[in-house]
Amino acid sequence: MSSAPFVRIAELPAHAGQTVVIRAWVTHLRSSGKIAFAVLRDGTAICQAVFVKNQLPAEVWERFAHLTTETSVEISGEVRVEPRSPGGAEIGVAGLTIIGPSPIDYPIQPKEHGVDFLLDNRHFWLRSPRQRAIAVIRHEVEQAIHDYFYENGFLRVDTPILTAAIGERSGLFATEYFDLGNAYLAQTGQLYGEAAAAAFGKIYTFGPTFRAEKSKTRRHLTEFWMIEPEVAWNDSEANMKLQEDFVAYLVQRVLERRKPELAELERDVSKLENIKAPFPRLNYTDAIALVQSKGSSAVWGDDLGAEDEALIVADYDKPVFVFNYPKEAKAFYMKENPDDPRTVLCDDLLAPEGFGEMIGGSQREDDYDKLVARIKEEGLPMDAYEWYLDLRRYGTFTHSGFGLGLERTVAWICGIQHIREVIAFPRMMHRLRP
Amino acid sequence: MSSAPFVRIAELPAHAGQTVVIRAWVTHLRSSGKIAFAVLRDGTAICQAVFVKNQLPAEVWERFAHLTTETSVEISGEVRVEPRSPGGAEIGVAGLTIIGPSPIDYPIQPKEHGVDFLLDNRHFWLRSPRQRAIAVIRHEVEQAIHDYFYENGFLRVDTPILTAAIGERSGLFATEYFDLGNAYLAQTGQLYGEAAAAAFGKIYTFGPTFRAEKSKTRRHLTEFWMIEPEVAWNDSEANMKLQEDFVAYLVQRVLERRKPELAELERDVSKLENIKAPFPRLNYTDAIALVQSKGSSAVWGDDLGAEDEALIVADYDKPVFVFNYPKEAKAFYMKENPDDPRTVLCDDLLAPEGFGEMIGGSQREDDYDKLVARIKEEGLPMDAYEWYLDLRRYGTFTHSGFGLGLERTVAWICGIQHIREVIAFPRMMHRLRP
Repeated sequence: MSSAPFVRIAELPAHAGQTVVIRAWVTHLRSSGKIAFAVLRDGTAICQAVFVKNQLPAEVWERFAHLTTETSVEISGEVRVEPRSPGGAEIGVAGLTIIGPSPIDYPIQPKEHGVDFLLDNRHFWLRSPRQRAIAVIRHEVEQAIHDYFYENGFLRVDTPILTAAIGERSGLFATEYFDLGNAYLAQTGQLYGEAAAAAFGKIYTFGPTFRAEKSKTRRHLTEFWMIEPEVAWNDSEANMKLQEDFVAYLVQRVLERRKPELAELERDVSKLENIKAPFPRLNYTDAIALVQSKGSSAVWGDDLGAEDEALIVADYDKPVFVFNYPKEAKAFYMKENPDDPRTVLCDDLLAPEGFGEMIGGSQREDDYDKLVARIKEEGLPMDAYEWYLDLRRYGTFTHSGFGLGLERTVAWICGIQHIREVIAFPRMMHRLRP
Repeated sequence: MSSAPFVRIAELPAHAGQTVVIRAWVTHLRSSGKIAFAVLRDGTAICQAVFVKNQLPAEVWERFAHLTTETSVEISGEVRVEPRSPGGAEIGVAGLTIIGPSPIDYPIQPKEHGVDFLLDNRHFWLRSPRQRAIAVIRHEVEQAIHDYFYENGFLRVDTPILTAAIGERSGLFATEYFDLGNAYLAQTGQLYGEAAAAAFGKIYTFGPTFRAEKSKTRRHLTEFWMIEPEVAWNDSEANMKLQEDFVAYLVQRVLERRKPELAELERDVSKLENIKAPFPRLNYTDAIALVQSKGSSAVWGDDLGAEDEALIVADYDKPVFVFNYPKEAKAFYMKENPDDPRTVLCDDLLAPEGFGEMIGGSQREDDYDKLVARIKEEGLPMDAYEWYLDLRRYGTFTHSGFGLGLERTVAWICGIQHIREVIAFPRMMHRLRP
């Protein structure tokens, strides 16, 4: 063991010329008989360690032969800035300690693996450069979300996951809750967010949501993260303005700070550079006409499916709003459109390049009688919504909000086709492990 | 309706001398016959609206008489900076529109209410100045957590809530998961955090965790938020250093930015100003001797209860570490202490002023054989831990981490005795609504 300071690989360039200790995992090995190289990964970055036979004690040189992929090691040596080296710095090795050997049957080998195999070994798959790049971009998006709302005066509110029955909705996970019957895992925090908006003005939620749906598409997870801002006094127009400003901020922030990770993913950043407000807007009726003109069989009154969404965004290089859908296609809490009561004041924001819906938003019904009528029409149990109706009984208010699906947004920014790759341990209908 | 710009109350001082529109709820009313005052709240701040009879159209003056607590209104008028006024600015009213009337049976009245009543009306209770102050401090702590880790090179990882069986542990919420049997709501993200630390070096989680325990103390919720950093190559000593640096940062950040909210809560900030690293440390054996000397019946081998914790912190004005507990009092994954194999390398961090344990941390067992032995001793199903054991099979590594309970930490900083007040919609054994 060396008494030199322990540093993370990302910090190496700041220690050029110094002797340091790093602790890391081996990713690649190569040797010529007189000089040998190990590429090392510690999660912060990678670097190359250079072993020169005639400059090393014999036992250190021989130890190199015991290294395998994913062996964990402690290495001491001098830091050299070396632009040709992976990571931009290398270590001239003076000492090597093997901390954790790695048998040669390490599951992930330098060959093609099927996605089920990779997901079974997700705890190892995360170690790949591509998965790290996705995780770093996900984190950047998450931090950008928090920063955006913090700087703009929104209060974060953590809404409950365990919720009482709110009617026989489909796709709910249920769990026995002491003597109170079943609790259900929240599909949204919105109703609570509305109560919080009346208390705090501008709020957002950031948490996991759940859908017990037997969907097996590349856009569905049973557990995914959602961000739900809710703003007192915002109408549907202000709501869409907030969405485009917010989404543009997230994209520009990733472009600014995570270029190396976008490059690792071979993302075409020219597709992202253009993502600035305002975004194009189509009302639902025009959207139906557009997809019909492109051969869709959708008719007025239908919700838009993934194929219709793809037809719409094909004409644009930015996210596209489709707004004011028919009432029957949308949830009971959306505000009736005074200019066309067949429709509600809502929007879906469709990502470019066919990545699908990433936001659903709406102005909320603030009229007590209309909301009661909608709850009855949907056959929902009135008593479960008494507290929600209270918000309309006492000082009702114009308000709007939306839900941004984190995984879909990150998948789009990363250019990843299947959202299972953008969460560390995805949960799908057939997958609960690891 | 006025064509003047709509502004939030917090922005009023920047509009001194201008005519603006605000939208808000009424909290207090008073009238002298010729002049009348309404205190208004919009979640961002409060202000006073001043109605002068002989300067207003008769119908506006008469409308004032219809105002009640929690009526929502739109008011236009000129902004005046007025230090004596609540919030520091007031509006000389020119126009008043009642948006949402509020019947006089508004549940929360200016009198004492029992806590069950207040929790039944949590959607209204949140509107009180005290509850707002708590929510603002909670948000500040949350943002400070994200900022601390972002700036220190940690990667945020969202670990799953729905997890496969990991043995017959008590206190688990179960839900049917398609054809895969039961899923269980995570009590911790730690095991996943360890896998992520091997991939990314320094990580943290931030999410809800669940305990189906019939505890009814002021420190227990069935759903609470936990922050769990995990760091490759940190030993127990480095783990404690990280904890004290982190906790001190959170407290200083709240002191710096949330003085008005601490004042609203009448928090004695002198108790917080001293919270700086390092924190005192007691090893478990000394802690037992200390509580015994104060009359506790605890004996070596026991975990420490809330009363023992209170005896320990009574001697200190900072959080206190108790470290290296007996193996049988702690979880199977904690690393055996090489200097005393009856104990493990772990710590609990106890908040001052009797607020109890806010962190539990440990170095993790990185020896494959020892970990297997512990899993067997505890009677846990080996196959559920195969992927976790993989982390010791291939390139095992020294690593440590901890879990900080968000609500307990915020309760301490706020000086709130019961943690049910520091989460928007608390979940307890007898409470699932609203």
